[in-house]
Amino acid sequence: MQPQDPHYPTRVRESLARQAFMELLGVTLTHIAPGEVHLAFPVREALLQQHGTVHAGALASVMDSAAGYAAFTLMPAGSGVVSVEFKVNLLEPARGERIEARARVIRAGRTLTSVAAEAWATDADGERLVATLSGTMMCLVGRSVSG
Amino acid sequence: MQPQDPHYPTRVRESLARQAFMELLGVTLTHIAPGEVHLAFPVREALLQQHGTVHAGALASVMDSAAGYAAFTLMPAGSGVVSVEFKVNLLEPARGERIEARARVIRAGRTLTSVAAEAWATDADGERLVATLSGTMMCLVGRSVSG
Amino acid sequence: MQPQDPHYPTRVRESLARQAFMELLGVTLTHIAPGEVHLAFPVREALLQQHGTVHAGALASVMDSAAGYAAFTLMPAGSGVVSVEFKVNLLEPARGERIEARARVIRAGRTLTSVAAEAWATDADGERLVATLSGTMMCLVGRSVSG
Amino acid sequence: MQPQDPHYPTRVRESLARQAFMELLGVTLTHIAPGEVHLAFPVREALLQQHGTVHAGALASVMDSAAGYAAFTLMPAGSGVVSVEFKVNLLEPARGERIEARARVIRAGRTLTSVAAEAWATDADGERLVATLSGTMMCLVGRSVSG
Repeated sequence: MQPQDPHYPTRVRESLARQAFMELLGVTLTHIAPGEVHLAFPVREALLQQHGTVHAGALASVMDSAAGYAAFTLMPAGSGVVSVEFKVNLLEPARGERIEARARVIRAGRTLTSVAAEAWATDADGERLVATLSGTMMCLVGRSVSG
Repeated sequence: MQPQDPHYPTRVRESLARQAFMELLGVTLTHIAPGEVHLAFPVREALLQQHGTVHAGALASVMDSAAGYAAFTLMPAGSGVVSVEFKVNLLEPARGERIEARARVIRAGRTLTSVAAEAWATDADGERLVATLSGTMMCLVGRSVSG
Repeated sequence: MQPQDPHYPTRVRESLARQAFMELLGVTLTHIAPGEVHLAFPVREALLQQHGTVHAGALASVMDSAAGYAAFTLMPAGSGVVSVEFKVNLLEPARGERIEARARVIRAGRTLTSVAAEAWATDADGERLVATLSGTMMCLVGRSVSG
Repeated sequence: MQPQDPHYPTRVRESLARQAFMELLGVTLTHIAPGEVHLAFPVREALLQQHGTVHAGALASVMDSAAGYAAFTLMPAGSGVVSVEFKVNLLEPARGERIEARARVIRAGRTLTSVAAEAWATDADGERLVATLSGTMMCLVGRSVSG
């Protein structure tokens, strides 16, 4: 996977810094490479659902952002990225101290990029795969967007 | 659609009250009927993504919860509900003052219930459909769950 | 929904006639209107899976084609349509004499169109909803495609 | 991944032999292991869509069957398998001499199993990834089903 813009890490970091919702979730960037982005957040009370595990929507949110940024690493300077669609499968209850979303590009096209992500719940005992995402991201060009 | 438990509105309200993540999003219940639940939140800065529109993950979160509770209205007393999977399509940028997720049951089975939801962005000019969800919810019985 | 090309019914019929796979399934066009296409096939042994009901893939195939053509009714003359993604939910075993896929456009964009479809199994006793599809179709322009 | 039934290869082969629709597509089993099944078919005119490439529905059908059987390898003797849902992403036009669907289990549960599959188009020049599937399979027990 070959980035078109060598400054992609800066572009991703600046865009993430503008995502107020990721800040609300407590998300930080943990890995970036061409076609790959990992984001993580500490598990806290405010992110839980009625059974005391992390809400599927919080898992979807962080996987969607990681997947969008994985696609964004391969997009040209001056472009923006938006989600077209994503599907989330919930594999088991998400417990633990920390959730990490690991996303990668499956196929990058000029307009559409196919992406996949996994959500891992980690604690002192190790890590467990709790959810997966498959999705489509769209590159916006020349519409005065910047990430 | 025939509820098995006449107290389903209480069951849904109590479960929603335990969803810390829905409280973080500012979600309130706006409609409940057998097989139907609407949830809404006011749009605020903390829920936006990098382009200044509501984050796809926030839309997914409220549609998922509404869809789960739509399924839950038809489940027996003493059961719980969890999401198996959902797919979200983002139709246009979500701007406005308020997002409402409107969910309904497509087909209720003993174990699995198929659901659909729409997210509407509303402001003084009217409302626009900004996203859709299709998903599968699972009924948990006899595992000391309560919503 | 306003068609850009008044000859859309001819365009859909000609394209469908070129779909060898739809002929293999025995599919015929049963309804066409702006943003709406219905396709149907008679149930026969060759379309069944191991439990004697219609294969999920056959249901997906006819819903995908109906959804693609529903999108195609609103596309300009000279364009082509391809599927970007679709999700299928199987609601109950598909038995009966005939399957009809009923598709409609949810939102038509310049490049991407969001679609939904239902598969109904019909016999002498009536009809039952057996599967649903939600998907995304893409408009191809100026690439010497014709449907 | 540990099979519960050592005779799983026989069970898969017998079930596949009863799938008339797979025979219509010309599908054969090319690989089987615990949690993994590959199915393939030669590309022929009857499986094409209007642009001369393999129909998305044919890709979905063979990926769905491969994914169902991948799940089935881990299910107990006497059980059956049905698809709950699947999502297909079409990455590029499917051309070539042969399509192979490669499916594997992501997580096997007692009732539900999460699966993924890829469709590869192969010819003399090599192979290309043309589509992906993510889905959910359900185990049917004690309902006089056999695959």
